[in-house]
Amino acid sequence: MKPLILVTNDDGIVAPGIRVLVEEMKQLGEVVVVAPDSPQSAKGHAITLMSPIRLNKVDVFDGVESYECSGTPADCVKIAKSVILADRKIDLCVSGINHGSNASVNIIYSGTMSAAMEASLEGIHSIGYSLEDFDYDADFSPCRPIVRQISAWILENGMKNTKLLNVNFPKTEGGPYKGIKVCKQSEGYWSEKYHIAEDPRGEKYYWLTGEFINQDNDSNTDKVALSNGYVSVVPSHHDLTQYKALDGELDDLTQLI
Amino acid sequence: MKPLILVTNDDGIVAPGIRVLVEEMKQLGEVVVVAPDSPQSAKGHAITLMSPIRLNKVDVFDGVESYECSGTPADCVKIAKSVILADRKIDLCVSGINHGSNASVNIIYSGTMSAAMEASLEGIHSIGYSLEDFDYDADFSPCRPIVRQISAWILENGMKNTKLLNVNFPKTEGGPYKGIKVCKQSEGYWSEKYHIAEDPRGEKYYWLTGEFINQDNDSNTDKVALSNGYVSVVPSHHDLTQYKALDGELDDLTQLI
Repeated sequence: MKPLILVTNDDGIVAPGIRVLVEEMKQLGEVVVVAPDSPQSAKGHAITLMSPIRLNKVDVFDGVESYECSGTPADCVKIAKSVILADRKIDLCVSGINHGSNASVNIIYSGTMSAAMEASLEGIHSIGYSLEDFDYDADFSPCRPIVRQISAWILENGMKNTKLLNVNFPKTEGGPYKGIKVCKQSEGYWSEKYHIAEDPRGEKYYWLTGEFINQDNDSNTDKVALSNGYVSVVPSHHDLTQYKALDGELDDLTQLI
Repeated sequence: MKPLILVTNDDGIVAPGIRVLVEEMKQLGEVVVVAPDSPQSAKGHAITLMSPIRLNKVDVFDGVESYECSGTPADCVKIAKSVILADRKIDLCVSGINHGSNASVNIIYSGTMSAAMEASLEGIHSIGYSLEDFDYDADFSPCRPIVRQISAWILENGMKNTKLLNVNFPKTEGGPYKGIKVCKQSEGYWSEKYHIAEDPRGEKYYWLTGEFINQDNDSNTDKVALSNGYVSVVPSHHDLTQYKALDGELDDLTQLI
């Protein structure tokens, strides 16, 4: 039986990146698409609790069962698993291909990675794919064979100590990738700058921009891999415990009561 | 000089929980409040990139410099740091007190914790406080002295291997807390159920509900601490790398190119 592959993203169901992903996944199994009906970049792991969401069957990918959903990327995975595919086993969830990198700390802001993480939380092997190019017309063609091969390998071999991969492709100017690095998330943050101006009614507004600051000197990071022309693969998870701080440094707190 | 304490939340600037937090923090230092102008629960680490946000100075906490912001909790921290307090050093960021638990995997969905994490990302010591009670009229009075004492301890001693604490209070029926446990995030997930119905126009809608499934048998988790009547303190961070999977299990992937 062909494996069942759930495809989603955060750029919305009509983004070029998800079309590439659907075309490649069709070669590996039966594909079902559940993706946002509008762009949902930087929505993090938001879910919709205080209002209902909508789901419409659409015909955008030739012969592929597809739904647009009014919710966030994480909502798309939840409704796919619990409603659309409630009585079936999802063998793999892939999210993307994102227009823009989700390396380093971008994973926590990313709707693409949050969708993949949501699936992994419930035990589904999941991969988020992102290309280091925000353009709508980004060239995804060099990613195609690698996306297909990584996905095929995971379908074949599974994963043991992780259920979630954060895969990023560097922007290459036509050249081939140098290789694939399995590495860690680079330490860094966005130093924000606000564009401050007045709207047509004279009211002040603030518009977020920023610059990524890399703080990691380790050579085995996703940022280093990408800057050297490699595809980065970071095994990831949702346990945010900082275990290093469980060794006694906070023990005084337990004496407060 | 009095320490500078940034207070935020995700339930919105008029929620009772943030009022308690402001009142307690006023006893420890100079307080500046930047909080969402509307409820932002379950917004995860969403940030606002594609539209401008607004900021209004408001007078809701007697004598405390306060701003309501149209963005997400993470936006509130970014704009506080980069615009309102751009030329000052923030000594502590506290977020909450959240109406509802952020123990276990709730940390990834939580606007409260994402705000605190956003501050920690930029090197600010941060604490998210949450009470295991979703009620608007939740009784925060038992939390007050503990919130004050934990915050005072962090201001006094700092943290070494973490910059972020996820503190949760159990709902006690008037009784005292059993104590404070420093522990790890419990492994678990939300098994979603959708309420499916028709709107007044006959269109189908889906409304998310769910049940938390604990999958952790470890005794040293936040869920266990809370269920035994203890306050849980989980040192947390934003490195989502699953290091256990860097030991070779994915090495075949590097052979694909």
